[in-house]
Amino acid sequence: MSGMRPTGRLHLGHLVGALSQWVAFSSEYDAYFEIADLHALTTAYEHPEAVGPARDQMVIDWLAAGIDPARATIFQQSLVPEISELHVLLSMIVPVAWLQRVPTYKDQIAALGPHVATYGFFGYPLLQLCDIAVFRADTVPVGRDQVSHLEFGREVVRRFNHLYGPTLIEPQPTLSEFPEVPGLDGRKMSKSYDNAIDIADDESTTAKKLRSMITDPQKIRRGDPGRPEICPVFALHKLANAERVPEIEENCRSGALGCVACKMELTDRLNGMLRPIRERRAAIDPATVGPIVEEGSARARSVAKQTIADVKDALKL
Amino acid sequence: MSGMRPTGRLHLGHLVGALSQWVAFSSEYDAYFEIADLHALTTAYEHPEAVGPARDQMVIDWLAAGIDPARATIFQQSLVPEISELHVLLSMIVPVAWLQRVPTYKDQIAALGPHVATYGFFGYPLLQLCDIAVFRADTVPVGRDQVSHLEFGREVVRRFNHLYGPTLIEPQPTLSEFPEVPGLDGRKMSKSYDNAIDIADDESTTAKKLRSMITDPQKIRRGDPGRPEICPVFALHKLANAERVPEIEENCRSGALGCVACKMELTDRLNGMLRPIRERRAAIDPATVGPIVEEGSARARSVAKQTIADVKDALKL
Repeated sequence: MSGMRPTGRLHLGHLVGALSQWVAFSSEYDAYFEIADLHALTTAYEHPEAVGPARDQMVIDWLAAGIDPARATIFQQSLVPEISELHVLLSMIVPVAWLQRVPTYKDQIAALGPHVATYGFFGYPLLQLCDIAVFRADTVPVGRDQVSHLEFGREVVRRFNHLYGPTLIEPQPTLSEFPEVPGLDGRKMSKSYDNAIDIADDESTTAKKLRSMITDPQKIRRGDPGRPEICPVFALHKLANAERVPEIEENCRSGALGCVACKMELTDRLNGMLRPIRERRAAIDPATVGPIVEEGSARARSVAKQTIADVKDALKL
Repeated sequence: MSGMRPTGRLHLGHLVGALSQWVAFSSEYDAYFEIADLHALTTAYEHPEAVGPARDQMVIDWLAAGIDPARATIFQQSLVPEISELHVLLSMIVPVAWLQRVPTYKDQIAALGPHVATYGFFGYPLLQLCDIAVFRADTVPVGRDQVSHLEFGREVVRRFNHLYGPTLIEPQPTLSEFPEVPGLDGRKMSKSYDNAIDIADDESTTAKKLRSMITDPQKIRRGDPGRPEICPVFALHKLANAERVPEIEENCRSGALGCVACKMELTDRLNGMLRPIRERRAAIDPATVGPIVEEGSARARSVAKQTIADVKDALKL
């Protein structure tokens, strides 16, 4: 089980990170992928109108990346009310102090401002646990920043099972550390930094973005020796052009390779890598997203309903 | 809209207080009466097995008191998952600070112990608001101890409507101050003080309980002058035997009325008052409770579903 907040078009960082792992997982596991629209509300509650359109763009990128809705269950959090039901039921046994100990709460308020300090945001790690527990998911890929959330969730499951008998499954983390994908400016690729190569970009947009990238400022023209270790273009070569990296590194340092040619080669490779995905993307009719999500959510609910029934049995409700 | 936590058999205090008001309300309004089993979990989560049987006894008392399930909607909170759905949706806009300001939270932790300081208990006033708002209830009877909860709930509704447009109804309180019903020991009648006359008691149990009541300790035998103002038997006369109060008061003070005779008269009046209710109670087949609650909950859900649809529309989900 894994999920993403609907934030609109995905970029190369998502593709190399979570999405490639999801594709692998969905061939190995009975996988559930969540459009986390309730989670999106925790921080975007003042502008929820962006969430709906973002959902469609995100799901199209999932499909383009190779997630097959016939194999994996794609569902929308708000269309599975059993998640909310479980949230309220489990809220009764979760000490406020446990939530206060989750480090991300104070970090995020410091980063995003006091307006996010809502009851819902405070309970975010519990809602995440419900996403997982309602499907009895046993394996969850987590990045380093989510380890404390999953540890909290496992504690909640243990408490429930201790109080009412074995009912819920304690999810195991699969630590997933991806190489950080550099953006056009060398910082981590991120929508909010406006430094991303989107999956949905066309080839000429990609070329234009790559042309505008800053390289080693001491390398003004071909012939000048470059320092690949500080160059974001080189970092992207490592990602999309691995077998050519030793030669590029040598020719950059010697000065034999100019930045223009280096960027053109990267453009070719990156567009080549993204081409089959973009072709799939272009072939997807946006009108199919709704039915896929509805069908997946219905499938998800049939599993979730059984969990709720078992939880209520355990609680003797 | 009103509700009670399922705590088992109800007593005279419930009857004279909430239940008589509910009967009046249900002839005047489209009334919703909630078996608040999720609320019961906030403090009883360690022993939830008592909640189920308590539900049936409580509903039988409601019916005996004159609540007509054909006129009023009797429903169980945990059977209306839309309440939990609304709870999660609204949680996103409720500042933690608002909940911290509700005075009952700290009071109850002081009274009941730190184990009740859970995320669910912290959100109790929000869950109460959801009980009300999901049915678009416009009138809520509140005792003095619940005024701060309703004020909080009205604030949440105003915030929602301000952020997303008019969607939810701001409930108006009907302040209900009942005469406090004294228990057998003169303290407020309460199950937890073990000083209650239950609706379900038979007449001889009622007689036995009243015989054991303490009266004015200075009035040892008939002839001794009594002080009605400190006597719990006298207080119950005011409730069940109003037209005879002046004479009883005079004869108690003069000593002409002995405590044994006084208690016997009270027993007759109280049993007489409770007789029709107890007869209705005895005629109720406990097996009918389940279907009544299921049917009422289904009716409640059809209203609640529409509210959730409107709330999601407002949130553009």
